[in-house]
Amino acid sequence: MCGIVGVVGNENATDILVNGLTKLEYRGYDSAGIYVNNQNNQDFLVKATGKIKELKNKITPEVKGSIGIGHTRWATHGIPTIENAHPHLSNDDRFYLVHNGVINNYQELRDDYLADVKFHSQTDTEVVVQLVDRFVVDEGLDTFTAFQKVLHLIDGSYAFLLVDRQNPETLYVAKRKSPLLLGLAQGFNVVTSDAMAMLDQTKDFVELNDGEVVILTQDDYQIFNENNQEVKRDSYHLSVDSEAASKGTYPHFMLKEIDEQPSVMRRISQEYFSSKGEVEVDENIVNSILDSDRIYIVAAGTSYHAGLVGQKIIEKLAGIPVEVHVASEFGYYPPILSRKPFFIFLSQSGETADSRQVLSEVNKKGHPSLTITNVDRSTLSREATYTMLLHAGPEISVASTKAYTAQIAVQAVLAKALSEKSNYESGKQFDLQTQLALVANGMQEIVDEKQLLDDMSRRILTDADNAFYIGRGIDYNVALEAALKLKEISYIHTEGFAAGELKHGTIALIEEGTPVIGFITDKLSAGHTRSNLQEVLSRGAEVFTISMKRVANENDGIILPDVDTLLTPLLSVIPAQLIAYYTSLNRGHDVDQPRNLAKSVTVE
Amino acid sequence: MCGIVGVVGNENATDILVNGLTKLEYRGYDSAGIYVNNQNNQDFLVKATGKIKELKNKITPEVKGSIGIGHTRWATHGIPTIENAHPHLSNDDRFYLVHNGVINNYQELRDDYLADVKFHSQTDTEVVVQLVDRFVVDEGLDTFTAFQKVLHLIDGSYAFLLVDRQNPETLYVAKRKSPLLLGLAQGFNVVTSDAMAMLDQTKDFVELNDGEVVILTQDDYQIFNENNQEVKRDSYHLSVDSEAASKGTYPHFMLKEIDEQPSVMRRISQEYFSSKGEVEVDENIVNSILDSDRIYIVAAGTSYHAGLVGQKIIEKLAGIPVEVHVASEFGYYPPILSRKPFFIFLSQSGETADSRQVLSEVNKKGHPSLTITNVDRSTLSREATYTMLLHAGPEISVASTKAYTAQIAVQAVLAKALSEKSNYESGKQFDLQTQLALVANGMQEIVDEKQLLDDMSRRILTDADNAFYIGRGIDYNVALEAALKLKEISYIHTEGFAAGELKHGTIALIEEGTPVIGFITDKLSAGHTRSNLQEVLSRGAEVFTISMKRVANENDGIILPDVDTLLTPLLSVIPAQLIAYYTSLNRGHDVDQPRNLAKSVTVE
Repeated sequence: MCGIVGVVGNENATDILVNGLTKLEYRGYDSAGIYVNNQNNQDFLVKATGKIKELKNKITPEVKGSIGIGHTRWATHGIPTIENAHPHLSNDDRFYLVHNGVINNYQELRDDYLADVKFHSQTDTEVVVQLVDRFVVDEGLDTFTAFQKVLHLIDGSYAFLLVDRQNPETLYVAKRKSPLLLGLAQGFNVVTSDAMAMLDQTKDFVELNDGEVVILTQDDYQIFNENNQEVKRDSYHLSVDSEAASKGTYPHFMLKEIDEQPSVMRRISQEYFSSKGEVEVDENIVNSILDSDRIYIVAAGTSYHAGLVGQKIIEKLAGIPVEVHVASEFGYYPPILSRKPFFIFLSQSGETADSRQVLSEVNKKGHPSLTITNVDRSTLSREATYTMLLHAGPEISVASTKAYTAQIAVQAVLAKALSEKSNYESGKQFDLQTQLALVANGMQEIVDEKQLLDDMSRRILTDADNAFYIGRGIDYNVALEAALKLKEISYIHTEGFAAGELKHGTIALIEEGTPVIGFITDKLSAGHTRSNLQEVLSRGAEVFTISMKRVANENDGIILPDVDTLLTPLLSVIPAQLIAYYTSLNRGHDVDQPRNLAKSVTVE
Repeated sequence: MCGIVGVVGNENATDILVNGLTKLEYRGYDSAGIYVNNQNNQDFLVKATGKIKELKNKITPEVKGSIGIGHTRWATHGIPTIENAHPHLSNDDRFYLVHNGVINNYQELRDDYLADVKFHSQTDTEVVVQLVDRFVVDEGLDTFTAFQKVLHLIDGSYAFLLVDRQNPETLYVAKRKSPLLLGLAQGFNVVTSDAMAMLDQTKDFVELNDGEVVILTQDDYQIFNENNQEVKRDSYHLSVDSEAASKGTYPHFMLKEIDEQPSVMRRISQEYFSSKGEVEVDENIVNSILDSDRIYIVAAGTSYHAGLVGQKIIEKLAGIPVEVHVASEFGYYPPILSRKPFFIFLSQSGETADSRQVLSEVNKKGHPSLTITNVDRSTLSREATYTMLLHAGPEISVASTKAYTAQIAVQAVLAKALSEKSNYESGKQFDLQTQLALVANGMQEIVDEKQLLDDMSRRILTDADNAFYIGRGIDYNVALEAALKLKEISYIHTEGFAAGELKHGTIALIEEGTPVIGFITDKLSAGHTRSNLQEVLSRGAEVFTISMKRVANENDGIILPDVDTLLTPLLSVIPAQLIAYYTSLNRGHDVDQPRNLAKSVTVE
């Protein structure tokens, strides 16, 4: 959450910053701001609450500079006001700072060093810029040394960009736990939370590690580690299609990304199967997992829901016991681990702070790990032992769709590879390549039935106060994801529930007209789920069913083409994604940038 | 769900039935009905929708009989109407039947045998009484034989009471999966779903097993098994205080049961510790668990939430890995089990159908099991290898309170006993007896602060549309239970959330005034939970904190006295129970009998 950008050595700094922030908006949009300096003693600070377009409206033509920093905020401390928006500045107007992260000990730092200083915001960030000023002005340190001194005092996570008005040729940069990259462009340099935001300027980036501090100028960068030793590091060239990050003719990224899912399935099939139809996964990953006695999947939000499905797939196809854990819980309250655990981290962005905190403990204990992510070279990817990529293309909409289905498909690939190596029969006999082809075709059929789901949404959801998705087994796992989707963008309080568990209390919420959407894909439990739907029908619920052909009734709301039971989530989630999309639209909300949310959650 | 009663040989059958149904109301109250016959060719059928008091209003003085059956319904098939209320009768008015359970194949039976019969209800039950009639009238079977024939055709669960108008000295009784007991009184006999309902008539009961059929008369009972062999079984005397099931001077059972919790803690301490302070748990249980390699806790609803806490206590004090599963999920989609699993079933009533289904599979596989329950001789208790009792006294309010805290305390007792036997250091050093005394005193302090929670409820909850409870670790587990309590009786859509997980999507639901209640009891995560509360405060939430003294701030809503981290749920849940109670009251709902619910959930 929060995105930051910086530029040094380009006369169009303002445009570069605003363009970059627009692409970082998925990281938060409670407020935004820029500071630019034209090196002729002219500088400008512009801030606005709300989205980037509010900021744009406030930027007048004279706001120009050759160095600048920008910020889009996801509020952690202090409500979204102009005062709390970044950049923050020191009281003497000399230092300007943007920050992504959380300073845990800001209150202590303020009490210890700045008791006499008047603060202008409720943020944890302002203390940092005031403290740099104190060390420079009162203690006579140079700016870089003062900055380093402050960094050593901080307990927390950060990506910082600092400008000293008395030296407006230099950007001071620091990173710990929050993502940050340098970008090397023609005649100038940039810095950004996400490479995607600077693709219009450059495709050459330099990675930064935790604890590093950088002096960035128009034509040079010097990286120092925590011991103040200079570190030499070359840039890498990012091969990414910047067109993929545009929504083309679609009204919203989310709809585009829903529609892309059949082709993502085909791409995963291509990437992970040889021309002979053999599954291809790095043998080291397979051996390392087969050498372990239990898999621990760690993830958050939608990725956690994909992990729940992955558990069922891996257990069934590969015969290895799997536990799935919410990252923020596992971090501080881990269960008793097995003797030889293997960890899988699921993260679309590869930057999720809650997962990083777990991975750092896992690394300390020397356990092997695999990150399954959409972003090559992301932090979780670099810090884990192994990586498997989703190949889903950039996902811009805050509500994740194609990353969820890609995560499930890639876990199935992994399960298949494990079974081939270990000769585990049920996996060996599972024709994943054919199934993925069936899935891709099935997805296409469903996305072509959009109108049906728009109609359903208008009929039972658009005016609803709350709602439920229910199912059993793997359908329950999808119900959790379906409910989250609807919550995220329609703001209807929705819960996913194990169909059999509803009667143990929560059924008290069912009243005349409460929407209850049931998933029914498996013969084993179809009858029981239908009984549970009868129980809510008896209490007046509006019931809609998403069923699979082999267990369908004529009254079902939408009937999905048959695929293997283990892969049903890849189809059954699609109507739920579309229901969320249309409900958000019909209620007049911002589909791609729902309130309060941010895509890449880089605070704990 | 659903409760049934029957009586044979007492002129006051009507009063006995109505009195019994009143005490069974916790099992469902969508509709109720009785049938009585005075053996002089006079009989009466009275039904009403809604609670028992509606039925009482419809019973006129002439409704008298010496044999009768009664039913209170929790609707599974068909909405709650007079037509769907029990007793059901055959079209020729000869047979009357009440049923608790679910007939899965009622549609097939109807198609196969009764295609020409006109039905008067949408229930699964009516088919049974019509089918008995068909076999008697059309095929010439005697009533008992016809009844047995029907039972053999049924796929499902049932407790049945059948009256044949041409033989009104006999009650035909059958049981499979649904609870049912015979009661032997002075000069007459009764039959009931729960002994509690007949304590005014007798304390001598006869257990029935699945598949048995009974011919019950004024002075005799004959039990037959599925092979039609007569089974001899003596009665047992139930030692229970029928006063305990009265609410005394309290306005509601729930408030009484909340207030009883300190004494329940003391009773558990007395029951499970010797006078020398040594923990006393059946050595066979301890040995059987220590002989296993992993514990699987299976439960539903509030008991599931108690199991989540139990997991943390057992893992920490006894060092044994524990998994907790929702019963209805485990039944059809079990995980890969360890080599030597041990099962613990948590069920207040000992009758939960979802858990019974799992236990029956566990027994087939020969795994050892323990039921922790409040009801001695309950089905789960009889079917598991071992039993530990909660000693919480009867819990009448549908929303469980003291059974939850008792379940946690008894799991702690078990963990302590395991550690003593296995010499596991952290458990050996844990002074559970002293901690339970601290807990009992702490509970007393909190229940004495009721007014504060009533005020809080009026301020932020009474008019709320939805709400959240959040916490980390064991606080998260309590948040789940706290949310369920509020859902059950206030009908506010409330979710318990891992504090760190909220930002991964659900935070989109937070708007101006959304109540968010945080639990903060552990130093390890207090700072992080407070950060998460800041995130929702920034978005306008109304925040209330339930914190423990050692991590309290002056602004916390209520501060709990310190107890060991593992036992904090025993204190932190109390304010949540009281918040639910007052919110239900302030919104004008029925605290003890919330809509749609039933206490003992005997369908899957």
